[in-house]
Amino acid sequence: MDFSSFVTSLGTSFIIFVVLMLAFTWLQRKPGNAVIYYPNRILRGLDPLEGRIGTRNPLAWIREAVRASEADVIAAAGVDAAVYLVFVGSDSSSSKNLFDSVNTDNPVVIDCVFMGSSQVICSFIHAVLAILVLSGIVLLPILLPVASTEPAPFSTDSNSEGSFKNLDKLTMGHVNKRSPRLWAFLLGIYWVSFATYYVLWKAYEHVTDLRAGAKISPEVRPEEFAVLVRDIPAAAAGQSMKDHVESYFRSLHPETFYKSMVVTDNKEADKIWAEIDGYKKKLARAEAVYAKSKTTGNPEGMRPTNRIGFLGLTGEKVDTIEHCNEKIKELVPKLEAEQSTTLREKQKQAAIVFFNSKPAAASAAQTIHSQKIDRWTVIEAPEPRQLIWTNLPKKFYERRIRSLGVYGIVFLTVCFYMIPIAFVSGFTTVQNLKKYLPFTKKIVDQPEIRTVLEAYLPQIALIVFMALLPSFLMFLSKAEGIPSESHVVRATSGKYFYFIVFNVFLGVTIGGALIDSLKTLVNHPGDITSLLGESLPKSATFFLTYVALKFFVGYGLELSRVVPLIIFHLKKRYLCKTEAEVKEAWAPCDFGYATRIPNDMLIVTIVLCYSVIAPIIIPFGVVYFGLGWLIARNQALKVYVPSYESYGQMWPHMYLRIIASLIVYQVTMFGYIGLLREFFYAPLLIPIIVASFIFAYVCQKHFYLAFFHNPLEVASQGKKEIPNMEAIYTAFIPQCLTNDKFEGGDQFEDARSQSLRTTSF
Amino acid sequence: MDFSSFVTSLGTSFIIFVVLMLAFTWLQRKPGNAVIYYPNRILRGLDPLEGRIGTRNPLAWIREAVRASEADVIAAAGVDAAVYLVFVGSDSSSSKNLFDSVNTDNPVVIDCVFMGSSQVICSFIHAVLAILVLSGIVLLPILLPVASTEPAPFSTDSNSEGSFKNLDKLTMGHVNKRSPRLWAFLLGIYWVSFATYYVLWKAYEHVTDLRAGAKISPEVRPEEFAVLVRDIPAAAAGQSMKDHVESYFRSLHPETFYKSMVVTDNKEADKIWAEIDGYKKKLARAEAVYAKSKTTGNPEGMRPTNRIGFLGLTGEKVDTIEHCNEKIKELVPKLEAEQSTTLREKQKQAAIVFFNSKPAAASAAQTIHSQKIDRWTVIEAPEPRQLIWTNLPKKFYERRIRSLGVYGIVFLTVCFYMIPIAFVSGFTTVQNLKKYLPFTKKIVDQPEIRTVLEAYLPQIALIVFMALLPSFLMFLSKAEGIPSESHVVRATSGKYFYFIVFNVFLGVTIGGALIDSLKTLVNHPGDITSLLGESLPKSATFFLTYVALKFFVGYGLELSRVVPLIIFHLKKRYLCKTEAEVKEAWAPCDFGYATRIPNDMLIVTIVLCYSVIAPIIIPFGVVYFGLGWLIARNQALKVYVPSYESYGQMWPHMYLRIIASLIVYQVTMFGYIGLLREFFYAPLLIPIIVASFIFAYVCQKHFYLAFFHNPLEVASQGKKEIPNMEAIYTAFIPQCLTNDKFEGGDQFEDARSQSLRTTSF
Repeated sequence: MDFSSFVTSLGTSFIIFVVLMLAFTWLQRKPGNAVIYYPNRILRGLDPLEGRIGTRNPLAWIREAVRASEADVIAAAGVDAAVYLVFVGSDSSSSKNLFDSVNTDNPVVIDCVFMGSSQVICSFIHAVLAILVLSGIVLLPILLPVASTEPAPFSTDSNSEGSFKNLDKLTMGHVNKRSPRLWAFLLGIYWVSFATYYVLWKAYEHVTDLRAGAKISPEVRPEEFAVLVRDIPAAAAGQSMKDHVESYFRSLHPETFYKSMVVTDNKEADKIWAEIDGYKKKLARAEAVYAKSKTTGNPEGMRPTNRIGFLGLTGEKVDTIEHCNEKIKELVPKLEAEQSTTLREKQKQAAIVFFNSKPAAASAAQTIHSQKIDRWTVIEAPEPRQLIWTNLPKKFYERRIRSLGVYGIVFLTVCFYMIPIAFVSGFTTVQNLKKYLPFTKKIVDQPEIRTVLEAYLPQIALIVFMALLPSFLMFLSKAEGIPSESHVVRATSGKYFYFIVFNVFLGVTIGGALIDSLKTLVNHPGDITSLLGESLPKSATFFLTYVALKFFVGYGLELSRVVPLIIFHLKKRYLCKTEAEVKEAWAPCDFGYATRIPNDMLIVTIVLCYSVIAPIIIPFGVVYFGLGWLIARNQALKVYVPSYESYGQMWPHMYLRIIASLIVYQVTMFGYIGLLREFFYAPLLIPIIVASFIFAYVCQKHFYLAFFHNPLEVASQGKKEIPNMEAIYTAFIPQCLTNDKFEGGDQFEDARSQSLRTTSF
Repeated sequence: MDFSSFVTSLGTSFIIFVVLMLAFTWLQRKPGNAVIYYPNRILRGLDPLEGRIGTRNPLAWIREAVRASEADVIAAAGVDAAVYLVFVGSDSSSSKNLFDSVNTDNPVVIDCVFMGSSQVICSFIHAVLAILVLSGIVLLPILLPVASTEPAPFSTDSNSEGSFKNLDKLTMGHVNKRSPRLWAFLLGIYWVSFATYYVLWKAYEHVTDLRAGAKISPEVRPEEFAVLVRDIPAAAAGQSMKDHVESYFRSLHPETFYKSMVVTDNKEADKIWAEIDGYKKKLARAEAVYAKSKTTGNPEGMRPTNRIGFLGLTGEKVDTIEHCNEKIKELVPKLEAEQSTTLREKQKQAAIVFFNSKPAAASAAQTIHSQKIDRWTVIEAPEPRQLIWTNLPKKFYERRIRSLGVYGIVFLTVCFYMIPIAFVSGFTTVQNLKKYLPFTKKIVDQPEIRTVLEAYLPQIALIVFMALLPSFLMFLSKAEGIPSESHVVRATSGKYFYFIVFNVFLGVTIGGALIDSLKTLVNHPGDITSLLGESLPKSATFFLTYVALKFFVGYGLELSRVVPLIIFHLKKRYLCKTEAEVKEAWAPCDFGYATRIPNDMLIVTIVLCYSVIAPIIIPFGVVYFGLGWLIARNQALKVYVPSYESYGQMWPHMYLRIIASLIVYQVTMFGYIGLLREFFYAPLLIPIIVASFIFAYVCQKHFYLAFFHNPLEVASQGKKEIPNMEAIYTAFIPQCLTNDKFEGGDQFEDARSQSLRTTSF
């Protein structure tokens, strides 16, 4: 890539960004678009434009994003979003508000959660952003002059102003081999490492506080009164699973045990429930169509009809409203029958056990119940909405074996994903298109279209495969037998991270360089090191463009929400008939951490790895994360709605991956400085690699346990009175087993707790 | 070593063994020696010879040792001894008795503790012995013929009957390089590995059951109602540490908290208490002497006197009885004053917290209390008798730093211990003796004495240093800040294991071979592999002798207890004046796991490593562990008295070290077969090395947590009524803070619980 194409690429991206920003400024003011730009606020029952009245400043959103406190973010999008913002670059100066608003009457906890001095430092914490800024303010002013003032023996045309060579002059590739100036780069690596340690430690402390702060809020959360029990051994003959579970837990927790809910196999009930739901929606739609036809056409209106055969295309034509009503009438008793069968006969070897206090549940979740690890596994209950009901009864060894199998598949996927893509790419050429789809020949033969197709056709396979990947990894993670949605997202994120680092980062830099080198090695064995030395800075400019593209186009699209906007308006105009359907059309998604975090992590890895080779990449990284932070804040406050709340359990994963990136960086640098620059003191980098491992270990030891488990002093906070336990219990009943029609009756709710009456409760 | 010296060595050892056994048979029958041969039974109040009446069979002790059930062993010497016997080679067929005798009314636990089928298999379990027997029955009949029938091109004199070469013929060294017969040896390694996995897994299951069985016994053990709390943050100004601890635990465990005992700095009180105790003993002794002098000499007797100056050699001569009485009278008020000062002013940042039920304490010990890892660390309380009071208040980071420091010192010790020994050995020569201690010249110059001295003088340094090592390692382990005696023993055992494997095993075999090889390498570079190939079997015969010496002489000495017997009789005759002194003279020690287990582990490592190279070592190993098991059982039943009970917490350490030995074995074999025998398929051993790591990991995951913590279903067993909590509390009060003279008064006991009265309790 030469300098002009670099500038062109940068410029194009920037123009797209400006256009998208203008579109955003213009579009978000229209009241009809509020559901796209402020869905979170609307769903929380706030006036979408409340804070905006009087300000027609197009950059007002920036002020709002910056001004909002961490407590606002948590209120709008949950702790997970706040933790993500800490990862990207949130400041925590305003988190004190959160804690002030919480009723904490125990001085011990207040003391633990807040240590005066750390608060001051915390307010300068921005995780990745902070790492990059800290690195940048030292590396840029030192390394750039050091590199550019080196008398370069092998670049003779270095004084031709404005050429791309000037960018090259700023990289380590410009420094001579064995030059004492390499000391500056070596020390730069130390500086970046220590900055990372410092920032990560502080950020971990801050996230721990955030998590505890959210957990001690007085709000009643059902999952805090429950534990999830898996691997229940078979009940004695004649004893129901429910009795079995209850007698076990009552004997071990005589004072605090409340009730249990045995997990059932809801497949059938789910299916019937979905069918009823479908008919209900169809009915509502048909009624809306009918009502509308009354106002527009003849006053009696026209009753909508449909065919009941395959895909609504064949079969008898029926009146939709009547048909749906009939079907619903027919299915409801079926559902009821299935529900009681499920509750009675489809009990599985897992249960949710309820306690009458938060500390009791927290303590039970941390205590080993059985002597055998494969029986009575007790863990903290996830939120009801994120329970993966079908995974709960999976047995201990089955889960282990599934995990192993999944990791085998992931390994193969990471290593060989490119092979089917290459194969399909080879197949989807213009020649093949003409050959197999002769009717396209005329179009394809036009020279302009041909050029475009030739350029993009092979990429289609890549795009399709890459788009399918997250769903595939999500499917694999679910297949491991993980009990909760947030855990699946974490697992997917991890897998995606391996994939993206291996295939994009290593694939582009080291892989490309190595293959080139191998070729050279065969032909001119002497040239290998100089080639590798050249190809690393070459990749640097590729990644500069990549990062810029990511933030200009990616963030532009995210903020302006052009795609959801178009889809919404199309749906609204042509498809939606009822209010519910319109609401569904604009329903916002969540942050999508499964792909968002690995993508950010890729940028971290790239920027870290090139931070010393080509320090000029650091400002790009700073812009990426600075802009990312701003936009993510805006989206958290106004757009995205969290689909679960895991109280920042993503953090230990993010932190570990930052360390992993750091180690990749250190090892790469060790190889680069030692082998390519032939610097005699390169082994001085070994201590810092070891230090990274030690830091990861110490940090894990220091924070993880109290992060993973709910410490007793946190669980004991808040209101002491016993909440409405029945409501807590009901919150866990899956949708398909509730019956909103018969809400007053107790035949359903109590088929579950029937055995309760026979016991001493 | 040639064959004749091998036979001589074996013969000598055997003769010593026979002599010691005869001595044992003869000596143990004398009633006066019962305190040496049956101290455990005497201390338990049993008739020492109860089971022996009517049988004058000298081998009766063997029958008794074999017949005793595991429950008997536990009753006599605790779970730790039973677990040690499982390690060495116990069978568990009789362990069911233990559980039958325990009141377990919950069918769930019985079901958990006993799985019908595993019990049948368990009864064939003998841990190390089982591994060796299983290995032996396959390896001996297969590998010996395979090795000996190999036509040997390079050993021409192999048919000279009776020579040492015949032993050599039975080793792998006799098999030609690249011979297909090496397949048999390679498969042998697989067989040994799988036998080890199987036996270890079963043994771990058995030990877990043993531990749980002992823990559910109805006996009230104070430590099961308490937790140890360390790293308590500073109390608020004006609040005593005791109030601080109690308010914290009362708020977190409102229903189950009973009381707390703050750890104090008892150094001063301890000193005074020891002084008083010394005077009391002196007084009793003087009184006995005085009483005796009345019967023998003049009827008034002679009042014993002593000097009160330096070491009793200088100063005024006083009447001992009067002097001691005076001193005691003077010191008791001083102790009382110091006791109340200690309790009031020397409270440290650690405490023992008591709960009113076992499950509450078990659950509290497993629950994380504070969000910060360095505050309110809660662990299971060790037994009162094994608490290391001075280590309790050591802070979190101090402990970490101390551990690091200690491991640094251990590393240096392991690597460089031989250097000071060599230095001192060089110094302690006959020449130096004559030079620096001229008065010995006459003796030294006699030729016989000179020969002996020249042979043994350099060894003295080795013997002295090796004898000091366990105490040194014990001191280091204590310096880590470990809270309990049993944990210190485990830590010492681990360190000693590293030492002994590195210095003895690796030192003798690989080290020796390598140094030889290096020399050869310099002179004749081609000979290196053949030399190493020769030196491994050479070491095999050295270790054969070593193992035989260990079991003949070592076990002979242990069983016959010649040394304690002589010391006891000498003491009794010349030193002991009172009954208490006599009792002290025969007081038995415990098993001394800190050195015993590493020594056994060394034999395991040696036998495993040579099991395929020279399978003939297996019978020696079987005899070592078979005899060891028999003698350890005898000692457990009759002699040793445990100084603490950790419910077999040593097991995970032993198990891990067996795995470590196995891995050392596999890696050695990989190198030996691959490099020295140049076998093409040696890389087939890599999977089994990986399998060992996976096995260790899975086994750890499977058993360790439930082993380390007290599972709730185990803690919930037994009597439900609340025991005498005050007695439990009192059990933890250190000796120097009790006052037996004023037992009725409450001024001491309640200085501790003074604050209790002001609280709501």
